[in-house]
Amino acid sequence: MDKIYFDHAATTPVDPRVLEKMLPYFTQNFGNPNSQHSFGRQTVSAVDDARDAIAACIGAKPSEIYFTSGGTEADNWALRGAAYALAGRGKHLIVSAVEHPAMIATAKELAKKGFEVTFAEVDEYGTVDLAKLERAIRPDTTFVGVMTANNEVGTIQPVGEIAALCKAKGCVFFTDAVQAAGAIPLRVKDIGADMLSFSAHKFYGPKGIGALYIRSGLKIEKLITGGHQERNMRGGTTNVPAVVGMAEALRIASENLEENAAYVASLRDRFIRRVQKEIPYVRCNGHPAHRLPANANFSFRYIEGESLLFSLDLKGIAVSSGSACSSGSLEPSHVLLAMGLPEGLAHGSIRFSFGKDNTPEQVDYAVDALKEIVVKLRALSPLFPKELKNEVFPKEE
Amino acid sequence: MDKIYFDHAATTPVDPRVLEKMLPYFTQNFGNPNSQHSFGRQTVSAVDDARDAIAACIGAKPSEIYFTSGGTEADNWALRGAAYALAGRGKHLIVSAVEHPAMIATAKELAKKGFEVTFAEVDEYGTVDLAKLERAIRPDTTFVGVMTANNEVGTIQPVGEIAALCKAKGCVFFTDAVQAAGAIPLRVKDIGADMLSFSAHKFYGPKGIGALYIRSGLKIEKLITGGHQERNMRGGTTNVPAVVGMAEALRIASENLEENAAYVASLRDRFIRRVQKEIPYVRCNGHPAHRLPANANFSFRYIEGESLLFSLDLKGIAVSSGSACSSGSLEPSHVLLAMGLPEGLAHGSIRFSFGKDNTPEQVDYAVDALKEIVVKLRALSPLFPKELKNEVFPKEE
Repeated sequence: MDKIYFDHAATTPVDPRVLEKMLPYFTQNFGNPNSQHSFGRQTVSAVDDARDAIAACIGAKPSEIYFTSGGTEADNWALRGAAYALAGRGKHLIVSAVEHPAMIATAKELAKKGFEVTFAEVDEYGTVDLAKLERAIRPDTTFVGVMTANNEVGTIQPVGEIAALCKAKGCVFFTDAVQAAGAIPLRVKDIGADMLSFSAHKFYGPKGIGALYIRSGLKIEKLITGGHQERNMRGGTTNVPAVVGMAEALRIASENLEENAAYVASLRDRFIRRVQKEIPYVRCNGHPAHRLPANANFSFRYIEGESLLFSLDLKGIAVSSGSACSSGSLEPSHVLLAMGLPEGLAHGSIRFSFGKDNTPEQVDYAVDALKEIVVKLRALSPLFPKELKNEVFPKEE
Repeated sequence: MDKIYFDHAATTPVDPRVLEKMLPYFTQNFGNPNSQHSFGRQTVSAVDDARDAIAACIGAKPSEIYFTSGGTEADNWALRGAAYALAGRGKHLIVSAVEHPAMIATAKELAKKGFEVTFAEVDEYGTVDLAKLERAIRPDTTFVGVMTANNEVGTIQPVGEIAALCKAKGCVFFTDAVQAAGAIPLRVKDIGADMLSFSAHKFYGPKGIGALYIRSGLKIEKLITGGHQERNMRGGTTNVPAVVGMAEALRIASENLEENAAYVASLRDRFIRRVQKEIPYVRCNGHPAHRLPANANFSFRYIEGESLLFSLDLKGIAVSSGSACSSGSLEPSHVLLAMGLPEGLAHGSIRFSFGKDNTPEQVDYAVDALKEIVVKLRALSPLFPKELKNEVFPKEE
């Protein structure tokens, strides 16, 4: 069997139709959209069309879309930009405890710069606790950031309710929709978000391009200062091929959203069902119902996640322990710890994220491989209680 | 004649060989280099190779190269990152008066945040005045930023001498080499720069990718916080195809540097000679000798630069008034004003920037067109003294 890619939450291949749309903008229509000549004008209209298409996909106005170099820049911009713009009103910021490192690390930086940060607690499923969040909001709270869906465990947050709460309390509400965009319906006005970020390479678009939606009327500070690009809000030559590619990728994803989501969820459910039935001492992390169609996250008791990842890789199956952005770190997932998992289980967790090109056969092959590997690794594990050795494959219930 | 592109300082087409190298990383080798599986490893080695190649081209160590989304981000990072990291030692920053908006705007932002900024003066050629710079450096000066070559008038700065001065005075020296990279020899150790920035799309590489060289041992604050990418200094998924493309573009440019520079300079000199000889009341801006091979910048007296730009565009010739990054602004060029040009001349200036695919025939066609246009626009200009009308084409000297 060919190699199997179950790490779509880390990145996705560029859809060939997307690449096709991008190609003319590298070598032929290469102009700088800021140039006031025909080479520039060609690309201005391409960028305008892309902005219109993207805005339409998320129910925003084109003037509310700002292109960035990706999700991380957009997250940094939203958090830093709002924190400093509103610092006169208050210096208390809230971000959920399960945010992406782009938010967590930025919040920690701001905490060194005179801001106070509260990490909003989540329940065992990774869902932000609304009552606790409400109590955490203070008169000097200016910003609340809660991701639309979690990158590690796939839990979808009640962002509409959080937005309403923030509105009532007078805080800016930002949602990192990097994992949600292209995967679940996303309408900024329905959510009621003041700001929202996403990144093309998570939905079969190119790397190096993302966007920040900023509700019209909201003023935040700039992150990257320079020329007059992005209506004077973000300097730097517009990355025309990438912008065009992001628009096409989001258009394709939006057009086929329900169909793709249903298909990918069917793979995920097949995977979860088989793992839960055929492998003992596992725990499926994240919310059982409110989760991304593509995401399955399992803790395998008595096993290190990394060992499992490497063993699967040897069999040609690509998965992730934690998120790609945390890799290189030896710490257990901050997401799983925030959900109350003991360190041992948090270390032994693996994310499987499925894509539109995956097949049920690949799922079955992976589960079969996983069963074998789990038995072998547990046999080698000093943590695995000997008396359980005959129970590793319990009878079906 | 086909359209003529004389705006290579704004952006360049991607070299087909560069695009060829990039292509596999969109759809096939699409992994996230932070992923710990075979799809990730494929791209890790591509990114490592690219970093090695880029480091070799500028005489740096690979560990001193940090990828960014472009020159503007790199400039922001260098200036903000050093300013905050060294704020305990002093809060005085110096940037030259002719820097790119990425530096000028960022310096002005920092001036609002408790830093004091001096804009270093330049002479009539746009060259930083070393004696004045030396006097401007104070005990609390931590950072000096002077571009390697100017984007509007092409003047090459004495960056080696400035670096030595900064070293003696104990300030960090940063040089924005966005216009210089790929155009003139660039060795960070020869210059003695602590930091240096460049951007791929200025040397036939893709948009949306650049780099900041940071001398090993120098610690600056991060600009974009998040995952552990770029040795924990810049969050965000690595833009693999763009990184690969930048390396290939810089390799090609470096391999053919002298040959290309000589060719492009021959076009520029042909252009300058003919304009100076055949069009009266013009001024060639920038240094007569120490200038980028590609750059010619002229002020046409009694004419608005924008009118000239639009008239040339109608004839299929693409040029720029000021820099692409300043367009949309109605203000005269800050570079020309700093050089002491009166506002009228600063408004009437045009940048012609040549490229390796331009030809002497294109240069001649453009000069012929320019001659016609200048006569017509001056005839219409209320500023043009009537008594000069018979002198618009003076005899050759």
